[in-house]
Amino acid sequence: MKFTDFSDTIIALSTPAGRGAIALVRLSGKDAILHTQTFFRGKNLLEQKTHTVHFGTIRNLENEILDEVVVTIFKTPNSFTKENVVEISCHGSPFIVKRIIQNFLDNSPVRYAKAGEFTQRAFLNGRFDLAQAEAVADLIAVDSAASHKVAISQLRGGFSSQIKELRQQLLDFVSLIELELDFGEEDVEFAEREKLTQLVKTIQTVIEQLLSSFELGNAIKNGVPTVIAGKPNAGKSTLLNALLNEEKAIVSEIAGTTRDFIEDEISIEGIAFRFIDTAGLRQTDDKVESIGVERARKKMTEASLILYVIDLAELFNQNTNKKEFFEEIKEVEELNINTLFVLNKADFWDKINNNSEFSWFNDWIKNSNTIFTQANNTTDKEDIEKLKYKILEVIQADNFNAGDTLVTNTRHYESLRNANLALDDVLNALEMGFTGDLLSLDLRTALEHLGSITGEVSNDEILGNIFGKFCIGK
Amino acid sequence: MKFTDFSDTIIALSTPAGRGAIALVRLSGKDAILHTQTFFRGKNLLEQKTHTVHFGTIRNLENEILDEVVVTIFKTPNSFTKENVVEISCHGSPFIVKRIIQNFLDNSPVRYAKAGEFTQRAFLNGRFDLAQAEAVADLIAVDSAASHKVAISQLRGGFSSQIKELRQQLLDFVSLIELELDFGEEDVEFAEREKLTQLVKTIQTVIEQLLSSFELGNAIKNGVPTVIAGKPNAGKSTLLNALLNEEKAIVSEIAGTTRDFIEDEISIEGIAFRFIDTAGLRQTDDKVESIGVERARKKMTEASLILYVIDLAELFNQNTNKKEFFEEIKEVEELNINTLFVLNKADFWDKINNNSEFSWFNDWIKNSNTIFTQANNTTDKEDIEKLKYKILEVIQADNFNAGDTLVTNTRHYESLRNANLALDDVLNALEMGFTGDLLSLDLRTALEHLGSITGEVSNDEILGNIFGKFCIGK
Repeated sequence: MKFTDFSDTIIALSTPAGRGAIALVRLSGKDAILHTQTFFRGKNLLEQKTHTVHFGTIRNLENEILDEVVVTIFKTPNSFTKENVVEISCHGSPFIVKRIIQNFLDNSPVRYAKAGEFTQRAFLNGRFDLAQAEAVADLIAVDSAASHKVAISQLRGGFSSQIKELRQQLLDFVSLIELELDFGEEDVEFAEREKLTQLVKTIQTVIEQLLSSFELGNAIKNGVPTVIAGKPNAGKSTLLNALLNEEKAIVSEIAGTTRDFIEDEISIEGIAFRFIDTAGLRQTDDKVESIGVERARKKMTEASLILYVIDLAELFNQNTNKKEFFEEIKEVEELNINTLFVLNKADFWDKINNNSEFSWFNDWIKNSNTIFTQANNTTDKEDIEKLKYKILEVIQADNFNAGDTLVTNTRHYESLRNANLALDDVLNALEMGFTGDLLSLDLRTALEHLGSITGEVSNDEILGNIFGKFCIGK
Repeated sequence: MKFTDFSDTIIALSTPAGRGAIALVRLSGKDAILHTQTFFRGKNLLEQKTHTVHFGTIRNLENEILDEVVVTIFKTPNSFTKENVVEISCHGSPFIVKRIIQNFLDNSPVRYAKAGEFTQRAFLNGRFDLAQAEAVADLIAVDSAASHKVAISQLRGGFSSQIKELRQQLLDFVSLIELELDFGEEDVEFAEREKLTQLVKTIQTVIEQLLSSFELGNAIKNGVPTVIAGKPNAGKSTLLNALLNEEKAIVSEIAGTTRDFIEDEISIEGIAFRFIDTAGLRQTDDKVESIGVERARKKMTEASLILYVIDLAELFNQNTNKKEFFEEIKEVEELNINTLFVLNKADFWDKINNNSEFSWFNDWIKNSNTIFTQANNTTDKEDIEKLKYKILEVIQADNFNAGDTLVTNTRHYESLRNANLALDDVLNALEMGFTGDLLSLDLRTALEHLGSITGEVSNDEILGNIFGKFCIGK
């Protein structure tokens, strides 16, 4: 039983700062209800049932009314933190919020909550595991349908249960091996080495799948920084507008709720693609502008996806320096970033295809991520749909199914990678016929890394890192 | 019975926009609980008691979880709007809030609330009167202890009950007069004219007191725009710093709740004084800088209070052009704005007092708002305390006691003024011995103006003006 009975009661504003109709001040701790009762005029809160709501006033020691409020009571263990929790719903004035909180701090043994302390208490009291606690922060930060879905799934323990299952299987084996050790010199073997090898390999397959999901998971969580590049007039703006226009209706809407959204952003299957503005490589021969080119290259290297637009008509143009044209393509490829080459004015393809002057291009195109779009017509709906599908393919989003668990958290990724390395050692030890005690050591390392994800293994430093990044009031 | 059973259900975000631990989405209307139940998985909300809280999930029609939420039920008439009200407490992500609201808008007959519509419904359903409804907006906007106090008092009906009482007394008289009219030619006189005259005079006294409180009330509500002026080196900055330093501790504090506060602001007895930066009049003879002087004069005319610092040592200086010095003082006085002249370096007063060269100044000082401060020592605590008291005196804050009702709202001020004018007409009519029907007309006009304050008399235009200025979600 993990339930920790913290002796102190914490308080913080839990709704966003600023003016609004309502603000919520939250208290948590053994005496949260008692301390609220000190300043509350209305029913006796101490006599009320859990999950009930009570109208009244909050007053200071001079009996001055600080606000008319609605107070909600959550009694231990049926609350977010599993402690007694009180939510004071007051008028959404920063001044009033400040006076109410200040009154508690000055006139009662309540203290101001640290960042993430409510969620930390929820975790320490066994309300959920560490990965779920992290999902709370993720949920608040979500800004796309896909990141929303992943965070909800993680909050509800989808990821945790998968990790816990892997861990349990290993744990069972470790127990058997450690039982052998108890028998010391008797040379018994409760844990079949063959079966253990199989199990470790199976677990590694799952872990590797999870590891490989991290790129997509990260893209979903943080959005995909995307650069549209290409020569001037290749059709970059038309492409961007066509992509954006599809989305306009979804991006606008409800006043006050969308201010956090970035303007040049599209969502494909719920994944946010954020467009970084860039002038493109080798836009000019002018020496002065070479700085601009350097800057563009830097931006491209920071991107996770490049949409490189090639105007086939321009390529076919007699005056175009083909060599330079091809070199620029090579240069983009050498950046080693997911790139989709959008071949604009597709009707010129007939003239280029199998034309010896374009042999390099013809060869290159067979081995690259390319897509054709119609001349002057990137707004063509079908083209845009195909393009979107192709974009998902390039960032490998199509390798995963709706129900798949995705790793979105760097900490989880690191733990999985370390667990995998430890399992490599286990396999190695098995192959070399190492003794049980050595096997047990490597297995324990793997278990520890897996356990750190859900917090079955944790320490103050890890917790400090995680909850310190939360906002105050959460 | 004013209860209006609106057929439609409204929804809006009620907490400030932005990220936070928690956001509250509020629904109000006959079917608020029913429509919430459509998307809620947990207990059957329709079977729950009022003022209870229920954990569950909100899902869209595809059964996708939009969030884990806590739902609070308020059943008619025991809610803010007196209608059925549901508060959905979700994770404080703008994206999640948007999806939840959008889901209601798209998949149920719930519509987005207009600005102030929750409070408007509360008013129309008789939850409180119009002056109290206006206090809700005032409360959200408060940023000083004094404005807080006035808004709370108004919210709790202090102002309303005073107005209603006046109105009731008049109403009783009107009834008697109109009873006379029913008797037509019989020339009865139920309403004693002498008593009516007395009553009207008494009511006018109260109204005039309320009207005279408006300047202070407005200062309390909106703060007092204050200019510190005076010649260069007169001690303006020292004075401002001394005033500000006293307050620093109160201005800082709890992260996230104070961002709305202006930096150069002090609070005296809970009234906010906001300092407007200005260079002062006639700072230089340079023609080019005359534009700066014009600008300073404009800022001073926009102020409600001028602290004009005079350096007595400088005045005593042989090189100082006394005439110009005095003319500048006159000019400030002619602005006709509450001004306190701060006479700095008080020890020079002995040399100036009764000195014929300073006769104009000696005469002037007797009839002006002046205060002496010690040489180079405006940081003297006692000086600052005296100065603060004097400032309150200058803005006439000392004319009112703690319990007095203050008018803070321009609309109320206008209505009181119009009621007063109508009562002038009543007195006039009484003096001229006008007939009951004419008296009744003037009295009805006065009643209407008084009634418009609390909303006993109101129309759509007035309501639109008032609630249109509210934020959405209130």
